[in-house]
This record gives sequence, structure tokens and C-alpha cells, in this order.
Amino acid sequence: MNAPLQTAKNAIDPLKLEKLAELAVKVGLQLQRGQDLVLTAPIAALPLARLITKHAYKAGAGLVTALYADEEATLARYAHAPDESFDRASDWLYQGMAKAFANGAARLAIAGDNPMLLASQDPQKVARANRANSTAYKPALEKISNFDINWNIVSYPNPSWARQVFPDDPEMVAVEKLANAIFAASRVDVDDPVAAWDEHNSNLRRRSSWLNEQRFAALHFTGPGTDLSVGLADGHEWHGGASTAKNGITCNPNIPTEEVFTTPHALRVEGHVSSTKPLSHQGTLIDKIEVRFEGGRIVEARAARGEEVLKKVLDTDEGARRLGEVALVPHSSPISASGILFYNTLFDENAACHIALGQCYSECFIDGASLSQEQIRSQGGNSSLIHIDWMIGSGEVDIDGVRSDGARVPVMRRGEWV
Amino acid sequence: MNAPLQTAKNAIDPLKLEKLAELAVKVGLQLQRGQDLVLTAPIAALPLARLITKHAYKAGAGLVTALYADEEATLARYAHAPDESFDRASDWLYQGMAKAFANGAARLAIAGDNPMLLASQDPQKVARANRANSTAYKPALEKISNFDINWNIVSYPNPSWARQVFPDDPEMVAVEKLANAIFAASRVDVDDPVAAWDEHNSNLRRRSSWLNEQRFAALHFTGPGTDLSVGLADGHEWHGGASTAKNGITCNPNIPTEEVFTTPHALRVEGHVSSTKPLSHQGTLIDKIEVRFEGGRIVEARAARGEEVLKKVLDTDEGARRLGEVALVPHSSPISASGILFYNTLFDENAACHIALGQCYSECFIDGASLSQEQIRSQGGNSSLIHIDWMIGSGEVDIDGVRSDGARVPVMRRGEWV
Ligand SMILES: [Zn+2]
Ligand SMILES: [Zn+2]
Ligand SMILES: [Zn+2]
Ligand SMILES: [Zn+2]
Repeated sequence: MNAPLQTAKNAIDPLKLEKLAELAVKVGLQLQRGQDLVLTAPIAALPLARLITKHAYKAGAGLVTALYADEEATLARYAHAPDESFDRASDWLYQGMAKAFANGAARLAIAGDNPMLLASQDPQKVARANRANSTAYKPALEKISNFDINWNIVSYPNPSWARQVFPDDPEMVAVEKLANAIFAASRVDVDDPVAAWDEHNSNLRRRSSWLNEQRFAALHFTGPGTDLSVGLADGHEWHGGASTAKNGITCNPNIPTEEVFTTPHALRVEGHVSSTKPLSHQGTLIDKIEVRFEGGRIVEARAARGEEVLKKVLDTDEGARRLGEVALVPHSSPISASGILFYNTLFDENAACHIALGQCYSECFIDGASLSQEQIRSQGGNSSLIHIDWMIGSGEVDIDGVRSDGARVPVMRRGEWV
Repeated sequence: MNAPLQTAKNAIDPLKLEKLAELAVKVGLQLQRGQDLVLTAPIAALPLARLITKHAYKAGAGLVTALYADEEATLARYAHAPDESFDRASDWLYQGMAKAFANGAARLAIAGDNPMLLASQDPQKVARANRANSTAYKPALEKISNFDINWNIVSYPNPSWARQVFPDDPEMVAVEKLANAIFAASRVDVDDPVAAWDEHNSNLRRRSSWLNEQRFAALHFTGPGTDLSVGLADGHEWHGGASTAKNGITCNPNIPTEEVFTTPHALRVEGHVSSTKPLSHQGTLIDKIEVRFEGGRIVEARAARGEEVLKKVLDTDEGARRLGEVALVPHSSPISASGILFYNTLFDENAACHIALGQCYSECFIDGASLSQEQIRSQGGNSSLIHIDWMIGSGEVDIDGVRSDGARVPVMRRGEWV
């Protein structure tokens, strides 16, 4: 790992990396004086983790606790561990994280894992390990997905990821290209990133406010291989950009972000849809997905690549076959315009309209913070161990808003806001 | 960090490092098939952590969870964090570790931090941070000090540590020298380290069996600046080398180890004693300690260097002024013979007879596993947040065993077993 790290470090603009760290703390988290921070990162992202730690303390953090994941350790497990290992997870660690969040800590995750790390491993073991991990992580994840706390995800150009994104370049060039793509998409390649994010957040707020005024009953997507009606949850609310967590702190959970999104109705999705970009799911590439919904449930699913993994994902639990999110992103978004396939949801979901299988966000309901799990379910909110976004938008997709009386309002044409 | 890591890696014999990892898993932990492992390490020890992870899985580990500490993050805290940060600790993480141990996980710690990391920081802040950390760590540490689980500490030659031990050498030479000293002391520079440890363990068992037969009431140390009677706890038991944890697994908690040790009586220590080697305590060097005991309690304490830190240590709690361990190591031990001052207790305590301030080990009582905390206390076992070993043996120190009738038996003369 040392040589790649060395290479990587020299290929990454140190000033922009520092701006990214500062942005993650100040805009991503809005970390409060005295607030603790739980930071998770791949070990190769150590340079960014250190800068984030520094800026968190400068912002008055109480205590920063960093948890590092190591791709080499994961591969050692697949190579050497006994079969029963793949049903295990660090329950105690995730329960501890949930306790930290309950006690007021914020959460910052550095993304940047090799998206193909487990591509050649036994898909049964991968699925079992993911399932065990998702189950153990649920108490902590709920505090994030229920938006109890301020949280943020930001990315670091790990060499193992850069090699996947730019396979034809030498590693140092790949890392440099990925670093610059991350800096551009995260808006830290400008003089004043904080001001740029203020403007960006107000643009996203304008879109979500318009959609909230429309109170559509459904969105209708049409395009090549797609004729899909996505019913929206009763009392759904559109969000985008900065948003206020239940602890009262307004944060930007994703850096970058280009989407406005809400909760579909788990029982009211009909028709068929084709993916428009490959989905990289925990080590496997799933491409050219085609699914058909009846009564909100996926009743047919195919993929040209990774179909076995897709079917395992759908079998995770009952909610895995239903939608928890629908999101609108213009085809002209900067990430889409970059033409780069990142194999990373944080970026790829911001290049196109998308839907997500699985868990909904309770914040995407009017007064969501005060609704019980039962109320959310009765209004159409889906529940699952998983939340997996996949891209269904492109320059060839049209979207209409459909009112409860059947009236249709054009929302997007050829992938752009009307 | 990258450059030192790079340098370090090339200076460390990869075959011996792998033998050390295998020894830590097989002899140090005796890790069981299906047993989980909690691994803690400085981030610079990543190469050894990865090899230990591999050998743990090869031995059938259920799940290995690694927690990394980063010296740079610690320094960022001292440089930038608000004052209130220094009373914080990751309670949730330590409580999680305690839960993991309660559920059957083993614990392996890689030592090798820069012993002088905090030497130039505000001693008040260092003391507060240590105290907060000790308090938070207590539930997990008790499972270790009560020997509920199999555990092990092993060392890695971090560059920041090597520079302290060999300050006159270029870093690469320092790392190579420290690596070779660790390999020699850990007995992995032989063809069959497991066989070497079998023999070593049986030698230590012979010493502790003899001491257990003697049933001394006290040990009397005499030497330059030392005239100290250390009463032994009622029902004390000597241990050394491999030992059986309450979970039934026989492990070697320390690699290396040269000591046989037992529990003194917290109320029956009288006289004065001078340290024979400097003590490196969490970033500060404490040298030429002179203390006087009355009724088991330190009533006078001086040090030529680090006296302020020593006094803070003694003020941690009531038990910090009393002894929790007395240990015998011949002056001719291989670590002593190396002539190296490691600034690391794991090594330096195995170069000389020593005593420890603070918490006792309940295993050092006959039937210790079945004794309550109250019984241990009534037999003379000490209790404290701390356990700090310091060296009082040398080639000039004599030790007598004293029976309850006052009869004296020579135990060591001029630092060697009689
Ligand atoms: Zn989304
Ligand atoms: Zn999503
Ligand atoms: Zn000892
Ligand atoms: Zn000790």
C-alpha cells in the first residue's frame, strides 16, 4: 500500500484537499463547538482524514474518533477465514456508534473504496457478509437515515478506485484525474467554496420548493426501455442540498450533491424501467438492469451483468423489492457533463435521475420528524436493511408530474428541467 | 507519514515480521477457531496488523476488527482542540470493546507508539486526557486485567519510536536495529519460534512454582538507594509466561516476557526504593524516581526528571499510591543484556525486577477467578485506574524472601537467581 499512497499523495493538490476537508467540516457537517465526531475512512484516505481531524478540532470539536477500514484486511478475510466468518459483523462497534450518535456526535464518512474489490469473490459469501453487516449497522444507520444527527459523506481519490475509473492511465495520472474530478464536483476548485455552496444550495431549494407546491401524486418516466409511474408517498416532501437534522443543525449530507429527492409510495409503482448507467454494488458491477413493478413490488428483474448479485439484493428482505427514493438530476449536471463513470453512488447518482431500492428517508415527509415508523409506513414509506440508488435518467428521458385528478405537468424533457 | 513507512518497511525483515505475526496469534493468543479478535494498533504498524489479520483468519478467526490510533490525529488535538476536549474520551468505543470481550472476543494490541509524542504538550492537558481515557477504558480493561479473555501485546518498530531508541542513527538504520531487537527479544529469530516459546514457558513455570512453594510473606529488596520490604498479598500466586485465562484458553499475554510476578499486599509495603531505569509514561520520561512507602502508601516521591507528571500519576486515585504488582527478572535476561533502553514498558519491564503502581491482577491469587472484588481487596489486592510498571532491579540489587516467622531465604544476589 505504501507505494500507491506515496504516488497518490504527490498527484493530489494539497491546497484543494485542505479546502475539501474544511468544506466537509464547515458546510458538510456544520460541526458545532463541543460536538464529538465519528469519522470513518478507508485507510488509504489517511491524508484527508488527518486534515478533517485538524479542521474539526479547529471548529471546536470535542473529540474526533476515527475508524479505518482496510481493503487488504477484507481480502485476507475472503482468502483465509472459515466459512462461518461470513455471517459475522462487528455488532459491538456499530452499537457503540449508535450510542455515540444518541449522545450527540456527528458522523463523517470518507468514501473512496475500490468499487471492484470483491468482484472475483464468491457472491454467496459477499451477500452473507453484506447482510450480516447491514443487520448490525441498522441501529446506527437509522440515526443517519432518520436524520437525527448532522452527517456528511465526502470522497478521497484512493489509488484502487482511481485505477477502476481510469483503467488506461498510469496510476499517478489516474489519481490526479480522479482528484481533480472530485474537487470540481465538490466545488472546491473555486476561490470561495463556502460561497459557491451557498449559491448551489439556494438553486436546489428553488427546485424542491416548486415540486412541493405541485403536490404531484406520481411522476411518470418515459424513455428507451422505460415506461414507469412512480407514485409519491402521501405527505411526501422534496428535499435537496442543505437540510436541517432533528438535532437542529443544517448540514449538507452529501458532497457533491445535485439531486432533489423525495419518498415514493411503496405500494404505488407500476410499469417497467431500464437503468441508464452501471451500478457498482459492493464489489460487483450490475449493468443494464431491467425491472417490472406491480403494486410497488419488483416482480421481474434482469441485468446484462451482475444479475445474480442483483437478485440477491432483491431477496435481502421484503422492502428490498420496493422503492425508498426517487430523485431528479438534470442531464446537464456538472457530474454528468464530466462524462466520467465513477462506479461510486455518491457521484453517479448525481449524474442522472435515479430511484433507490429499500429504506426511505423519514425527512422526506411533511413533519417527518414527528411521525412514528407506523405512520410513515401507512403513508407509503418503505422499510428495508438496504438503500441502493440506481440511475434511470438520461438525455432521452421525459418526466411528467401527475396530479391526483390525472392532470399532467411537464417536469423534465430530454433530461432537462422544463 | 508515507516516507517513514516506506523506509521502515524496507528496513524490516519480512520473514521475521511474518513469524512474529504467526507467533502472536498461535502462542500469544492461542486464538480459537470461531473466536473473534479485537486488534488495536498504531496506524504506522499497518504491515504487522495486516499479517496478524491474515494469520488470525488462517487460525479460524470469526471476525477480526482492527482499531487504529494515529499519532498525527493526537497531535492535531493538542494543537487545535478546545480546552474541554481534554476531558473527553470515546466511552462508546470502549464500552463496545467490553461488550465484544464479554461475547468471547480475544484482544491483541500492537505496541510501538512514539514514547515522547506528548513530551512538549501541556502536562495538565495530558493528565486530564489520560484520566478521561482511563475512566472510559476501565470496563474493557477489567476484562483484560481480570484475565477473563485471552489477550496479547506484541510490538512493531514504528519509525517514531525507533528514532527515540537510536537517536544517533539515520532513521532506516534505527528502524532496522529496533526491528532486530524486537525479533530477538520475541524469540522469532530462531528456526522454530513456537518450540523456543515452549521451552521458555517451562523455564518461567519452574521459577514461579518454586516461589509458590516458598509462600513468602514479603520480599526484601536492598541495593543503592533501596531498602524496601514488599509484603505479598494473602493467598498470592506467582505467575510467569503462559497462563490460562478464565475462558479456559492458555495464552502468553506479553511478547516478549521474562518476568515472574505476583500481587503485593496494598497495605504492607515499607521503606524506600530508587528506580534503576527511566520510565516512559505516555509521552514523558520520568527518571531517577525515589519514593518512600508507609503502610503500603507512597508518602514521599521525587524524580530527577518528570516529577510533575509522576505526582499527577500518584494523584490519579487512592490506589495509584499503592502497589499492584511485584516482578522478578534476572539481570542477565536477554533484554537487559541487549543494553537497549526501549522507552517501552513491554520491553523495559523485562530487563529488570520491577514494581507496578495501581491495579493488581486477580489471576495472581490462588483461585483468583472465583474471588469477588471484595475478597481480593481484603487479601491485599490493590485497585486503581492505572497500572504502571517501573524498574527497581539491577546487577547491584539483592532480594531475600521473608517467611511469616521472619526467616529469610536468598532469592536473588547481584540481580541473579540464587
Ligand atoms: Zn439520491
Ligand atoms: Zn439514495
Ligand atoms: Zn510486570
Ligand atoms: Zn505490570
